[in-house]
Amino acid sequence: MSVIDTLISALQVLPGVGAKSAQRMTLFLLQAQRQGGVDLATALTTAMQDVRECSICRNFTEAEVCRICNDAGRDRRLLCIVESPADVLAFEAAGGFSGRYFVLHGKLSPLDGIGPEDIGLVHLRRLIEGEVGIEGEQGCRVEEAILATNPTVEGEATAHYIVQMLRAEPVLVSRIAHGVPLGGEIEYTDGGTLAHALQGRRNIG
Amino acid sequence: MSVIDTLISALQVLPGVGAKSAQRMTLFLLQAQRQGGVDLATALTTAMQDVRECSICRNFTEAEVCRICNDAGRDRRLLCIVESPADVLAFEAAGGFSGRYFVLHGKLSPLDGIGPEDIGLVHLRRLIEGEVGIEGEQGCRVEEAILATNPTVEGEATAHYIVQMLRAEPVLVSRIAHGVPLGGEIEYTDGGTLAHALQGRRNIG
Repeated sequence: MSVIDTLISALQVLPGVGAKSAQRMTLFLLQAQRQGGVDLATALTTAMQDVRECSICRNFTEAEVCRICNDAGRDRRLLCIVESPADVLAFEAAGGFSGRYFVLHGKLSPLDGIGPEDIGLVHLRRLIEGEVGIEGEQGCRVEEAILATNPTVEGEATAHYIVQMLRAEPVLVSRIAHGVPLGGEIEYTDGGTLAHALQGRRNIG
Repeated sequence: MSVIDTLISALQVLPGVGAKSAQRMTLFLLQAQRQGGVDLATALTTAMQDVRECSICRNFTEAEVCRICNDAGRDRRLLCIVESPADVLAFEAAGGFSGRYFVLHGKLSPLDGIGPEDIGLVHLRRLIEGEVGIEGEQGCRVEEAILATNPTVEGEATAHYIVQMLRAEPVLVSRIAHGVPLGGEIEYTDGGTLAHALQGRRNIG
């Protein structure tokens, strides 16, 4: 296989990139962005080698403890539990949440053989019990665990499992609200979402 | 900038990849395809470093002379002149052409400051005059130059310029046919293409 064909096929590891886009990317880099290609190779090598999971929240980081867990300005009493690092980025981009996160890296899925240990629930319980934390910070308890798994069957099942697991702990467990998204139209919103929106109604009078 | 952010921004050098896809690609590689990411880095480094232009046809290759120019089975008398390496790949995928190629790497565009030297026309003339070729093969003349530049204003202008340039050479110059594409419908074909299709009609009686 020629060097060019090797690159075309290696690029197809990226999600959403097929043979045609990979060819376009390869020729573009060769023609107009050799330096960009070299920089990309360096960034890839570094990231694949150095990025691991934060020892506290399991989010991706190149350090022992991630930026958010290390930030003394974040509220240690609030813990938002999400399925993936992408969810953390989405909440951070939205802004407004001052607590910390816990990343499950998946959701319970018995059919795929994914159980509680695979999504770090043992680690989560220890975190909530104050046994995991930054040096000198142990003992600072989480007061509220916000379940922000996706509103899918598996996401709901995972949330339900965590609720059961934390029943014995002195921690408030909450679930993010589900309802009509901002900018959405009620006319075009699906029935399940509308039912949730009604059920979760709040008094504003 | 963190290692992850560096990778997200480096990926955006790829055509068609914005901030959101770059983030998705990065998290996917970190989560599920670390080895794929490492392989991609290696392929990128090798390609950016080793790929250059074939000394005969100017197509991309990692060798001094590309695979097609080196192939003794290809007809040296036929030369298909194209704008880019992607066009070579398209003709090769279509199959049926047994000659060789010449890659312009662009098209004449005086407004962008792209003149005849920038698209290798001096080299093309020497190739057609038999002054460029594989060791021991010099002197084997090109008998037909097929102009396969795109049917755009600049592609046509480039083709026209090459026709003028080769007027003095003992070589037949032809242009690929333009007309209704296979599977296309006449009803939905644009006027310019239909005019070309009519003009280029052939006797089949």
